[in-house]
Amino acid sequence: MLRVGILGATGIVGQKFIDVLRNHPWFEVTELMASERSAGKAYGDVVSWQPTGDIPHGLADKVVRPCDPDRLNLDFVLSGLDASVAEPIEIAFASSGIPVISNTRVHRMVPDVPLIIPEINPHHLDLISHQRTRLKSHGFIVTNPNCSTIVLALALAPIHEKFDVRKVFLSTMQAVSGAGYPGVSSMDIIDNVLPFIPGEEEKIESEPLKIFGRLDTGSIEYSNMVISSRCHRVNVRDGHLMSVSIALENPPDLQELKLAWQEYSPEILQLNLPTAPARPVRITARPDRPQPIRDRDAGDGMTVTIGRVKPCPILDFSFSALGHNTVRGAAGGSVLIAELLKSRGYFQN
Amino acid sequence: MLRVGILGATGIVGQKFIDVLRNHPWFEVTELMASERSAGKAYGDVVSWQPTGDIPHGLADKVVRPCDPDRLNLDFVLSGLDASVAEPIEIAFASSGIPVISNTRVHRMVPDVPLIIPEINPHHLDLISHQRTRLKSHGFIVTNPNCSTIVLALALAPIHEKFDVRKVFLSTMQAVSGAGYPGVSSMDIIDNVLPFIPGEEEKIESEPLKIFGRLDTGSIEYSNMVISSRCHRVNVRDGHLMSVSIALENPPDLQELKLAWQEYSPEILQLNLPTAPARPVRITARPDRPQPIRDRDAGDGMTVTIGRVKPCPILDFSFSALGHNTVRGAAGGSVLIAELLKSRGYFQN
Amino acid sequence: MLRVGILGATGIVGQKFIDVLRNHPWFEVTELMASERSAGKAYGDVVSWQPTGDIPHGLADKVVRPCDPDRLNLDFVLSGLDASVAEPIEIAFASSGIPVISNTRVHRMVPDVPLIIPEINPHHLDLISHQRTRLKSHGFIVTNPNCSTIVLALALAPIHEKFDVRKVFLSTMQAVSGAGYPGVSSMDIIDNVLPFIPGEEEKIESEPLKIFGRLDTGSIEYSNMVISSRCHRVNVRDGHLMSVSIALENPPDLQELKLAWQEYSPEILQLNLPTAPARPVRITARPDRPQPIRDRDAGDGMTVTIGRVKPCPILDFSFSALGHNTVRGAAGGSVLIAELLKSRGYFQN
Amino acid sequence: MLRVGILGATGIVGQKFIDVLRNHPWFEVTELMASERSAGKAYGDVVSWQPTGDIPHGLADKVVRPCDPDRLNLDFVLSGLDASVAEPIEIAFASSGIPVISNTRVHRMVPDVPLIIPEINPHHLDLISHQRTRLKSHGFIVTNPNCSTIVLALALAPIHEKFDVRKVFLSTMQAVSGAGYPGVSSMDIIDNVLPFIPGEEEKIESEPLKIFGRLDTGSIEYSNMVISSRCHRVNVRDGHLMSVSIALENPPDLQELKLAWQEYSPEILQLNLPTAPARPVRITARPDRPQPIRDRDAGDGMTVTIGRVKPCPILDFSFSALGHNTVRGAAGGSVLIAELLKSRGYFQN
Repeated sequence: MLRVGILGATGIVGQKFIDVLRNHPWFEVTELMASERSAGKAYGDVVSWQPTGDIPHGLADKVVRPCDPDRLNLDFVLSGLDASVAEPIEIAFASSGIPVISNTRVHRMVPDVPLIIPEINPHHLDLISHQRTRLKSHGFIVTNPNCSTIVLALALAPIHEKFDVRKVFLSTMQAVSGAGYPGVSSMDIIDNVLPFIPGEEEKIESEPLKIFGRLDTGSIEYSNMVISSRCHRVNVRDGHLMSVSIALENPPDLQELKLAWQEYSPEILQLNLPTAPARPVRITARPDRPQPIRDRDAGDGMTVTIGRVKPCPILDFSFSALGHNTVRGAAGGSVLIAELLKSRGYFQN
Repeated sequence: MLRVGILGATGIVGQKFIDVLRNHPWFEVTELMASERSAGKAYGDVVSWQPTGDIPHGLADKVVRPCDPDRLNLDFVLSGLDASVAEPIEIAFASSGIPVISNTRVHRMVPDVPLIIPEINPHHLDLISHQRTRLKSHGFIVTNPNCSTIVLALALAPIHEKFDVRKVFLSTMQAVSGAGYPGVSSMDIIDNVLPFIPGEEEKIESEPLKIFGRLDTGSIEYSNMVISSRCHRVNVRDGHLMSVSIALENPPDLQELKLAWQEYSPEILQLNLPTAPARPVRITARPDRPQPIRDRDAGDGMTVTIGRVKPCPILDFSFSALGHNTVRGAAGGSVLIAELLKSRGYFQN
Repeated sequence: MLRVGILGATGIVGQKFIDVLRNHPWFEVTELMASERSAGKAYGDVVSWQPTGDIPHGLADKVVRPCDPDRLNLDFVLSGLDASVAEPIEIAFASSGIPVISNTRVHRMVPDVPLIIPEINPHHLDLISHQRTRLKSHGFIVTNPNCSTIVLALALAPIHEKFDVRKVFLSTMQAVSGAGYPGVSSMDIIDNVLPFIPGEEEKIESEPLKIFGRLDTGSIEYSNMVISSRCHRVNVRDGHLMSVSIALENPPDLQELKLAWQEYSPEILQLNLPTAPARPVRITARPDRPQPIRDRDAGDGMTVTIGRVKPCPILDFSFSALGHNTVRGAAGGSVLIAELLKSRGYFQN
Repeated sequence: MLRVGILGATGIVGQKFIDVLRNHPWFEVTELMASERSAGKAYGDVVSWQPTGDIPHGLADKVVRPCDPDRLNLDFVLSGLDASVAEPIEIAFASSGIPVISNTRVHRMVPDVPLIIPEINPHHLDLISHQRTRLKSHGFIVTNPNCSTIVLALALAPIHEKFDVRKVFLSTMQAVSGAGYPGVSSMDIIDNVLPFIPGEEEKIESEPLKIFGRLDTGSIEYSNMVISSRCHRVNVRDGHLMSVSIALENPPDLQELKLAWQEYSPEILQLNLPTAPARPVRITARPDRPQPIRDRDAGDGMTVTIGRVKPCPILDFSFSALGHNTVRGAAGGSVLIAELLKSRGYFQN
């Protein structure tokens, strides 16, 4: 079993890492790290535990450590650190030789840091060798995109590879869990919608350009796809829903388009990674789907569901997409990256 | 006082008509009409009353009548009938000489039936003379648009008259009250969003073309504006929010665009109609507005609020718009049409 | 495998039966029966499927039959019929020799019909022999209590058997799924609580008296426990929460009381029935629990959680109890009764 | 106009004070005071304004002052300070000669501090003379009870004065606004109920004993009524609902009991105070009321609604009560106390 440390273990993403790694066949959580305020105390005493089940056996009593790579015996760390503190800590771990898979935004757009969705751009991991040279370390940082970006990019991937997506207009309806805990006040969401999520539109309009970018020698040439977004917070616990309209370079007919989603079978599926869903993307024919409550748990939360595909009178087509923001969009996505890294031999010393 | 009859008085729109007409200076509800099932019974015994206050004094004991124009002494009727039964009833009233202001979809797109938003196209009332000729009656039908259409059209009007809107992409987040009572099941909306509202996208893509159409001799030449929409039902009681992206024939800069909304002052304001808000459209500078709970009651529910205006990387600009669906979008909008008709002398015998 | 028919298969309880029986080791759903309106059509075409996963393989295409016992080859039926139609149908099945486990209220208080919670009163099944004599059939009817009754009775059972519960004051906060689909209107529950559930207080004040009653020769002598209840519908999807205050014949101290819940281990656990939870009742020490979202799935929805136990200044103690209303309180509870019946040999011909 | 200062003006209660005093005929807000963090800045820049309308004209630009009585020209202050800081500040104001009407808990149970519901115990204001002696100041502190206490006490008052309430069992379902802003996390309330509100049960079990206490020379002899409570937070924005069961010293029949609520007409009504509702308590005959969304605004939020009165098999009767927690239960209640104080001449120098 590989030994995994959790950076930001008391936060909502950190907790979800722990929850997702219950009974993982390859990885075992052996260190919990958080801010100085929590360090030195038992995890169960400092965490406001959110997942449905109890804290996994053995971790409630575990003493939380500070976020310091010194004298740690770890194969890699998963980082759910707050963006305000993540940068130096993640660099310190990578520089000390410990690979970091980060769910935080701070390093996502750094040129030699891979921004990975395993089904879409696993080859971008080649950036790691350049990063290692820069950091003068065997360690490195790999990043998981923003939760909305992941849902959008997986929804686009099957059609982008066949028909070349040129323009994307999207309007999101995002779950409150995306804002962490306590996050969104109940006073802001009961009988309400918030039409603004700070920083979200910037991320969703830029990150896909890197993910769909072309790997050149040592850097990514961004895609010139154009994305226009408006992001909303709705009264939903988990599951980001989005309405998407697209223009394609080579637009097919409606049936061919639907077929692209149905037949999507990226290479990574052949690796049989433990957290990879049988189908990363599925399409539903039911006229009133996807819905957060009824579709977010598809593929144990790792499958994105597409529905209501129809012609768009302005661009070519429009559709709805839904994915689980804290599973596929955060903890599950990061663990899948870790599994990909392991299968590619990146964790071997 | 003019005598008003309510068609479909037990439905949610019918109730809202009664609620909005409390203490109206010109109009008094004197007849309540509903299906045969309710006819002959006291209104208070058959209605599942939804508005916040009690049933207005004198109406709870009033005997409900069937929807039959015979021997009624009314100056006009407001119709909140279900679309499945409205057509013959509304025609029967109009043919018998009683003007009908209808909130139902069935006659909206009939060529000689005006589809009116008083601030935008009051001159379309000229169609009435043609309709009267057809019906061989002094009566007539005027229609109130769909609730989402009204919010969208009012949001577009100030900029359309200055910069000529060519393309509109919109994604709505609509309140459950739009589906009536009992309407949307709690099982469908707790922790959920419904990405489909039957018939809604068709209405919102076509009705504005008539509203913004040019009145030719006896008919409307539809606008060739192109609208692409996706409609969603969210966990909100009242207030339809929409994200809108627009292409303009003559795009101004961002400041000029905002100014168009700020300075919007349609002619109808000079009539000082009782239900007309001081400002039919307002624009907010707060970065996280408009929101249903905090903006739907602006102008007593008759004002549409615009916010988060920004450049759109695909079309020209995008913004959020919000309006109260059962007030401006239904009962209040219909009463405002009635006030316009009265001020123009259409109710005189 | 025993062959199971579902009566009322298109209703919300019927659907939950099908969902709970996925991969059941002993039982297989072989017939789906519903009203004449659905009969003759494919199940997938007539059901408004509510559970999270898809309709189990093979059932979506299955033709729905009318609720008629003629020529059926079934070992037993589970009934989720609406109370308005259940009585003659359930009697027809029992009279024709097919055992009925019913989730409907109509036969619960009939003297020779067992009202069973397997952990509490399995010996009440002895009533079946009397019922068979009355019906002149090998078939019989066994009933599952009301969902709130089950949560309350399981919460009381561990302390009743040790300290003799005399008085119970309770206030419930019940989930909307208890009202079926479409059930509670969203207009009645957004930003609201309904302080009335028709018929609920009558059931919860009477059914426990039969469940905790003493089996005499051929009938049940009701318990003389006194229950006072007030029932509320809250904005929760699943999980009935209740505040309970109790007077005991032999009141222990607070620690002994808590121990009674902790140590509760009814005989039925030794049967290792597939749907029986390891712990039918658990007690939490966390000060803000139980909560619907965080505790309803304990024991796969079959465990009732107790919390916030404290002295009551009027009666002896008060506490909170929570259980999953559609699993433990309906479909899961009925399946557990079926498992008990099988293990006792009641399904053998 | 009397000049009013607001202590804790940026908090949710402080905001509600400002909102309730819009257009008040006697009182004008002339000073806004808050923590050092906000002091010196414009109110509109530091407040996260929650009420529906905009900040009243003239206050958005007003510079916030620290909570210091020096050199202020005020007739009285309304305090919505957080309990953690209120004690020394409120004493400093009272000692410097400025009357304080406080919504905070810290001084409520101090022997010579009146705890007032104007309809119930206006004569308790006689404690002020004793307090003035102790403080050696013309200033004084008067307190407004906890929001739940106010709803309960007003519900009990009409029957307590006629039939002598001896025991009270209650279970509350309280709105999230009672916890302030941001207050309750959306993650804790979507699809959930919280069965615990820190400190709430202690307040609701003790404060009514002082309110219903007998004023002796210089102190209150507490009522020996016994109250047992369990408090819950539900997914409701405003309006505390509670189920109450009572034992009476002289129990009437059900009709007499209902009549006591109908006929309740406390002496204070004759003073015609601006904020006093025509009926402080009303009783509804509708079987499914009171409900938060439909009854909280009765009497502009100042009326408590009683419903579903029925015999209790354990105590004498049970009923439901509902009141608006931020109006009657906080800001409106405090302003009503201020009006009572003015009418009694307590603000004259």
